[in-house]
Amino acid sequence: MDFQVIKVKENILEENSKRADSLRKLLKEKGIYFINVMASPGSGKTTLLTNLINRLKGKYNIGVMEADIDGDVDAERISKNTGVRAIQIHTSGACHLTAQMVHDAIGQFDIEGLNLLFLENVGNLVCPAEFDTGSNINMMLLSVPEGDDKPLKYPLMFEVSNIAVITKIDTAEIFDFDFARCEENIHRRNRNAKIFKVSALQDQGVEELSEYIDQLVEAR
Amino acid sequence: MDFQVIKVKENILEENSKRADSLRKLLKEKGIYFINVMASPGSGKTTLLTNLINRLKGKYNIGVMEADIDGDVDAERISKNTGVRAIQIHTSGACHLTAQMVHDAIGQFDIEGLNLLFLENVGNLVCPAEFDTGSNINMMLLSVPEGDDKPLKYPLMFEVSNIAVITKIDTAEIFDFDFARCEENIHRRNRNAKIFKVSALQDQGVEELSEYIDQLVEAR
Repeated sequence: MDFQVIKVKENILEENSKRADSLRKLLKEKGIYFINVMASPGSGKTTLLTNLINRLKGKYNIGVMEADIDGDVDAERISKNTGVRAIQIHTSGACHLTAQMVHDAIGQFDIEGLNLLFLENVGNLVCPAEFDTGSNINMMLLSVPEGDDKPLKYPLMFEVSNIAVITKIDTAEIFDFDFARCEENIHRRNRNAKIFKVSALQDQGVEELSEYIDQLVEAR
Repeated sequence: MDFQVIKVKENILEENSKRADSLRKLLKEKGIYFINVMASPGSGKTTLLTNLINRLKGKYNIGVMEADIDGDVDAERISKNTGVRAIQIHTSGACHLTAQMVHDAIGQFDIEGLNLLFLENVGNLVCPAEFDTGSNINMMLLSVPEGDDKPLKYPLMFEVSNIAVITKIDTAEIFDFDFARCEENIHRRNRNAKIFKVSALQDQGVEELSEYIDQLVEAR
C-alpha cells in the first residue's frame, strides 16, 4: 500500500516538473519573470506583496495570482491597494498548487504585456515546497512570531527557496526572536539563500528586497 | 489522471478511518483520553502544551507525542519543562500524521498507565485536518499574529476541531486582531466549536481550557 502511494506521488511530481518546465519556457518567451511566494498562514504574504508591488509597478506591468483553499479576501485586497491585475485561484481543498493549476489559471488571466507575475501560494510551509510551479524563483517568508527554529522543522521549504524574507521584524523583541540563529538555521538548509529582514507595515527593509527583485526582473 | 489520484486518496482516507477507529478502541480499553493538537507552524503549540501539562500532571499520567518533519527540539522542550514522557515522531517529509503512523509510534512508546495522551501534529493548517489520527477530540490553535480571517481560508481545519484556541492574545493590539469577527468566522465553520483565548507565556486564559480538558478526561 505504501509503495503504491509513493509511486503515484513520484509520477505526479515527474509530470509536474515537465509541466513546470514548459510553463517556464512559455513565460520566458513572453518576457515574464515569475515569482512563487510561499509561507505559513498569516505570515504577511499579502501585506508584503502589496508594498513590493507599489514600489515596482511604476517600472513593470505586474500581475498577481492569489491561491487559497477558499475565500477571496486576498485578491480583493491586493487589487484595491495596488491597482494591478489580480485573480483568485481556489484550490478546492488542495494544500498546494501544481504547475498544471498555475497553467490553467494563466489561461483565464490576461498575461499579455506583463513583465512580472507573482503567485501567492497556499499558506503552508510543507506541501507547496514539493511542487515546482514553473516559477523563476521561489521566495519564502518566515514571520517573527513563528519563531527562529522553523528552518530546522520545515527543511524542504528553506532548501527550495533562494529568497528568504523574515517578516514582522518590528515584533522581534516581544517574541524573543534571535536573528543570528535564524539566519544560521536558514543557511544550514540553503547556503545560497538571500535573506531579507522586513516589516512591510512599518515599511522597513522592503526597499532592499524590491531592488533585488528589480535586478532579477531586469536580467530576465 | 486526476481521477486516479483522487481514487487513491479516497482509499487512503477510508483505510485511515478504520485504523483510527481501532486505535480509539484500543486507547479506550486502556483508559487513555487522546487529544490531537493542530495548528500552523509557530502558533504556540508546544508552549501551550507545556503550560497545560504542568496544570494537569498532578491529577493525570500524561504522555506527549511530538510530530515534526525533522528536528527534535519540541520533544526535548516538553520533556525538560514538564517532566512527562515525550517522544519525537519524524514524518520523513510527510505533511500530516496518519492513524497508522500514530499506531506505530504508540508501539514504541510505553503507554501503560497513561490517562491522557497529547499528539502535537505537524505544523500545517491544511493536511492534518484530513486525517483522523484516532484521537477523541481535535484541538486547533490559531495565533493572533496569523490574523482573524483564517477560518475563511482554511475551512476544514476549523470544521474538524471542536476546541479552537486563540493563542498569543497579549499581542492583539499590535496585530489589530478582531476577536468578535474571529469567533464569528470560527462558528461559521463549526457551530459547536468551544473557543478559548489564551496567552500561554503570560499565563492568561489557560486555566479555563485546562478545566475543560479535565472534564473531558474525567468523562472518558
